[in-house]
Amino acid sequence: MADLSTCLPLTRESAIEAHKVIKPLIHLTPVMSSATLNKMASTPKAGGVNPAKPVIRLWFKCENLQRIGAFKARGAFYAIEKLKQDPTWLEGGGMQNGVVGFSSGNHAQALALAARESGIPAYIVMPDIVRPNKIEATKGYGAEVVLCGRFEREIAASRIVAEKGARLVPPFDHPDIILGQASVGLELQEQVKVDAIIAPCSGGGLLSGVALSCEGTGIRVFGAEPEFEGADDVRRGFLAGKRITEVKTSTIADGLMGTVGVHTWGVIYERKLVSAMYAVTEEEILEATRLIMERMKLVVEPSAAVPLAVALYNEEFRRMVEEEAGDAGWDIGLVLSGGNVSIEGLANLFAAK
Amino acid sequence: MADLSTCLPLTRESAIEAHKVIKPLIHLTPVMSSATLNKMASTPKAGGVNPAKPVIRLWFKCENLQRIGAFKARGAFYAIEKLKQDPTWLEGGGMQNGVVGFSSGNHAQALALAARESGIPAYIVMPDIVRPNKIEATKGYGAEVVLCGRFEREIAASRIVAEKGARLVPPFDHPDIILGQASVGLELQEQVKVDAIIAPCSGGGLLSGVALSCEGTGIRVFGAEPEFEGADDVRRGFLAGKRITEVKTSTIADGLMGTVGVHTWGVIYERKLVSAMYAVTEEEILEATRLIMERMKLVVEPSAAVPLAVALYNEEFRRMVEEEAGDAGWDIGLVLSGGNVSIEGLANLFAAK
Repeated sequence: MADLSTCLPLTRESAIEAHKVIKPLIHLTPVMSSATLNKMASTPKAGGVNPAKPVIRLWFKCENLQRIGAFKARGAFYAIEKLKQDPTWLEGGGMQNGVVGFSSGNHAQALALAARESGIPAYIVMPDIVRPNKIEATKGYGAEVVLCGRFEREIAASRIVAEKGARLVPPFDHPDIILGQASVGLELQEQVKVDAIIAPCSGGGLLSGVALSCEGTGIRVFGAEPEFEGADDVRRGFLAGKRITEVKTSTIADGLMGTVGVHTWGVIYERKLVSAMYAVTEEEILEATRLIMERMKLVVEPSAAVPLAVALYNEEFRRMVEEEAGDAGWDIGLVLSGGNVSIEGLANLFAAK
Repeated sequence: MADLSTCLPLTRESAIEAHKVIKPLIHLTPVMSSATLNKMASTPKAGGVNPAKPVIRLWFKCENLQRIGAFKARGAFYAIEKLKQDPTWLEGGGMQNGVVGFSSGNHAQALALAARESGIPAYIVMPDIVRPNKIEATKGYGAEVVLCGRFEREIAASRIVAEKGARLVPPFDHPDIILGQASVGLELQEQVKVDAIIAPCSGGGLLSGVALSCEGTGIRVFGAEPEFEGADDVRRGFLAGKRITEVKTSTIADGLMGTVGVHTWGVIYERKLVSAMYAVTEEEILEATRLIMERMKLVVEPSAAVPLAVALYNEEFRRMVEEEAGDAGWDIGLVLSGGNVSIEGLANLFAAK
């Protein structure tokens, strides 16, 4: 990763600069809507006492149609472009020594693709329990995959840094990654006039990026997490007033198992750029996944459906929209963060119900 | 349905007129592409002796994102608009007496929606073995659903015609339906420069419509069918030189179980507007469905994946493209005809493998 001293400050202006850099390298993903889902979101929940009556129009930012099938391409491309502008990296033989990342998910493929397009070797450290198709996909983008024990990823990555002179590109907790992801929010603002955006939150790269993209615009930003086994670390961190650093969860939203980083927490909580966090149950996530697939005909990872689950099922969120937006309602952007799920994975999720 | 005497002749000009009528009522669906699938289509099949080496660029016309989730909305809207221009229908109280259709699939929802938007009652006859969610979806568009025994659909529909004075709107074998579906091909031609189009074929409404849209343009049109249990009735009809009128198949491409109609056969075969028919196996359809979902992140019915299965796996088709297109290759439009499948249906398909 480029040295912190070379990073632009975490502001909307910097996000605009980053967006200019990666625009030719990423897809401008479409924004879709669904009359059926708008109606559902604007219908009070059945069965409750005095349910909230928000008026909601949803705009789905389709990062499942982004390169490598997830928003992660944005941050990875920006990270690589920034490295290529760093004279000390170039002089140290960076282009030959390559980059290293540890990830069992979308960051792996994103970094592999971004590195390959610049002719830079990429080493991806993955836990040896990862599914073979993920290893194949990452190799397919030209990366060298290094398998390691489940809790030895960071050690294995450090070894490659030491042996190969490769530079570590972390998955979320770095200003360049955050500024890259911020482009999702900037694009969405150009495509639709929204009052608010909900983004899923794991390490917080996407959520903090979206928050920066909205700084000073008046657009409210909310974070969405699974609540299962404490996966809602940021929501709990908001309540406790401090960052939570350990979580062990097996939520079906398997892209949202991580805890928030230092840089990301700074943007999300300390600078108050995210208005509030909301959590949803496993059943709500599963149902939102089904709705996106059956009604919108889009394949998404369960993690990507978490914002819709908040909009449809979280009464606290819905009450807030009713009170803040009144009869005029709100146009709410939802980031469909990714669609990398195997058909068998989906079949198992819904067969198990 | 409007009287045959009121129908425009089956020509490209008429298709253009029909398109003007329904344009404000339907979605202009996007055309998508996939670098991965282009590469697969342009890679010779492994394992064969002297496999074909075509160069293929694929353009997916996303009718799964059409209103009601399938191309059928086009024909249904045009049929209703034509009826509303028929003075004898209007004078006979047509707007109050309504329309009737028999369908267990996408035509049911399409007709229900089109009728509702014009304030016309719709009666939909469905076999009583149909899944409850299909009944609910059709009722959701405001239609009255009439259940009947599996082989009594036409009788039940006739009864409603007699009792209510409702007008029958057939699912495919009528010039107005064909001209409505032709708009898929016209739109695709405006969106991308293609050398050929492959459309799936059941009753032939879509395929004959696409064929008309390409008349005189030089764009070649091909039909795609499942081969399982003789579902490839049009392909076999081409070989026999006559229309085949009976098929009993349980192909997983459950939208393609029907046999071609009289009007549609006339366009497809007698007027030679379709160059050739190709058939694929159940395994090939399943694999093509998987690829569209996993690589393109689009939910499709297995029927919609049949054209991709032809492009990827049918050696006769691939050899033909190699010979006709040479090194320059072809840009081929594929009609993703619909995406109305339940998650459980998908789960079962892939769990059974």
